[in-house]
Amino acid sequence: MFKNFRSVEKCAYGRGSFDKLGEIIDVKRTKDAPNMVFLVDDYFKGKELEKRIPLQKGDMIEFIYAGGEEPKTSQIDELRDRIQATLGTPAGLVGIGGGSLMDITKATSLMLTNEGSSTKYQGLNLIQKSGVYHVGVPTISGTGAEVSMTAVLTGPEKKLGLKCDWTVFDQIVLDPELTESVPRNHWFYTGMDCYIHCIESMTGHLKNTFSEAYGYKSLDLCRDIFLGENSGQTPENDEKLMVASYMGGLSLTYSEVGVCHALSYGLSYVFGTRHGIANCICFNQLEEYYPEGVTEFKEMVKYHKIDIPVNLSNDWTDDEIERMIDTTLNLHHMWNHALGTDWKNIITREKVRELYMRM
Amino acid sequence: MFKNFRSVEKCAYGRGSFDKLGEIIDVKRTKDAPNMVFLVDDYFKGKELEKRIPLQKGDMIEFIYAGGEEPKTSQIDELRDRIQATLGTPAGLVGIGGGSLMDITKATSLMLTNEGSSTKYQGLNLIQKSGVYHVGVPTISGTGAEVSMTAVLTGPEKKLGLKCDWTVFDQIVLDPELTESVPRNHWFYTGMDCYIHCIESMTGHLKNTFSEAYGYKSLDLCRDIFLGENSGQTPENDEKLMVASYMGGLSLTYSEVGVCHALSYGLSYVFGTRHGIANCICFNQLEEYYPEGVTEFKEMVKYHKIDIPVNLSNDWTDDEIERMIDTTLNLHHMWNHALGTDWKNIITREKVRELYMRM
Repeated sequence: MFKNFRSVEKCAYGRGSFDKLGEIIDVKRTKDAPNMVFLVDDYFKGKELEKRIPLQKGDMIEFIYAGGEEPKTSQIDELRDRIQATLGTPAGLVGIGGGSLMDITKATSLMLTNEGSSTKYQGLNLIQKSGVYHVGVPTISGTGAEVSMTAVLTGPEKKLGLKCDWTVFDQIVLDPELTESVPRNHWFYTGMDCYIHCIESMTGHLKNTFSEAYGYKSLDLCRDIFLGENSGQTPENDEKLMVASYMGGLSLTYSEVGVCHALSYGLSYVFGTRHGIANCICFNQLEEYYPEGVTEFKEMVKYHKIDIPVNLSNDWTDDEIERMIDTTLNLHHMWNHALGTDWKNIITREKVRELYMRM
Repeated sequence: MFKNFRSVEKCAYGRGSFDKLGEIIDVKRTKDAPNMVFLVDDYFKGKELEKRIPLQKGDMIEFIYAGGEEPKTSQIDELRDRIQATLGTPAGLVGIGGGSLMDITKATSLMLTNEGSSTKYQGLNLIQKSGVYHVGVPTISGTGAEVSMTAVLTGPEKKLGLKCDWTVFDQIVLDPELTESVPRNHWFYTGMDCYIHCIESMTGHLKNTFSEAYGYKSLDLCRDIFLGENSGQTPENDEKLMVASYMGGLSLTYSEVGVCHALSYGLSYVFGTRHGIANCICFNQLEEYYPEGVTEFKEMVKYHKIDIPVNLSNDWTDDEIERMIDTTLNLHHMWNHALGTDWKNIITREKVRELYMRM
């Protein structure tokens, strides 16, 4: 399978690199478009990081609540309209936060130059024009959204990414210090997104030597971070998890996610469950597909005393379950990678229902 | 130490990806600049690969002898003048070959837009303008030149790279099939360039978690390729070495080469010794600085029955040795990484002479 993938153009890595953000973006300010838009997780409102944002006169700053449901197409369209009404086309967008803020920034960059609603562009290569300059500054590690070529959005009809070369960030600033204050549960759930990316990437049909090198290295780092006595939220592990997230994301570029992500998209679509914990809820029940990965995952859960919700399906209605099944069966590329081209003979509606009922 | 590095913009990896080269570059042909220049190692003249080069009417193809000395500033200036006389500014350059062809392509791209001799630009960030679109297609693995931000040239005064963001390729096509017919000695010497990159990158002062992840992964791959019963030139190892070379090169982006490269630059500068074998000649005598790495290197040499030249210094004149010492002591950044900021107290002219005399 031939792929020619676009990289994040520039990458700064290291403690304290956030302090260079101003000098990095200032060269992109022009006479016609002098202003930047900062999209910031509202967790940082009033916190020390807010004061360090290199805001200049006329710049917009939007604090975005990312603690509830995942990014929506309507949210992107509204944000785009507001930016255009205020600044026209800005010099660039800077997203500061977790996976949601990364995806919101990527999607808004594209929607500032592509007309109409973002729902029109959910899919592969549907975007017509390159977006505006956009910078990602992750403040939690694991999603891989800082390097991926997709911006996952939930629309009225589906949860699916705007996926194309132009989605990829022009610049990322990877400063492990920014992840120091992540609450422990979030650290774990989001870190497991990375771990699960690698397990899924490495156990399917699309992988190659390139994705394997990234995937297995990222897995090695995850084991350092989440298993055994040197595991946990330490400065050294914060550095490693930021690299693991990056490499896990790159591993997927030449491979694909699998059963866990396909099921978790259904859960998130119907209940708005956030991606990290949704993955953990699903992966926890997937020994059948990933026996070694799930065993190791359960060791990590136990060691760090993390609560993974179970017995959720008792409260689900038939209609909710049917909608989850519809959502997951639509993700052909994931099932195809995980189980091969005859996946439709294996993954029937009944099989998916049975998997959801375990949760 | 803050670095914000530019990536190769697009990367295609996989068997058979060379057949996509035409479609990749054709979108860069414009009405004003419709023609490409192919710079090809003359090893491929008359071979099957020559017929597969996606040449179009009016394109230039130059077969370049790369089996002798390393790329020279005069060679780049002359090539640039010839391209300009024939095509003006071409749509792009495509380099097909080993490290020399990669560096020639990168340097010529820059010299097509920056006036005067390339000797003016040997150093860091001396280039004033971005070059023309340039594509790298490596046909031997190990140098890391496909991802590095330098194009190493030997000039009348020094061996030093044109190093800046614009040096980096816009596109690389990594097709492991192209490396199948590499002669065994070259396979080993060039592969050891990668191994030594990683050993030097991982044993100095500038490394960080990012360079470590790439460096250690590349080392793991090198061990698969060069140590033990599954080692050797197999299709699987060809794939791995192409990834190892890429990752070894990226490891250096956030770190630096060390003692071996500093000494081997002297050897190449004075005698024109090619980079791969020059590194092997030097590394073979460097237990003092890299005890574990050199021990493992010697195992690899023994297993693959490779001839590493020794007792060369018997034939060297005092003048030649003095010139090698001058060259190596000029490479501050390498010594600084390898030994720390007080390296000048450790690496005296006498110490360097003693190291060269072991060879």
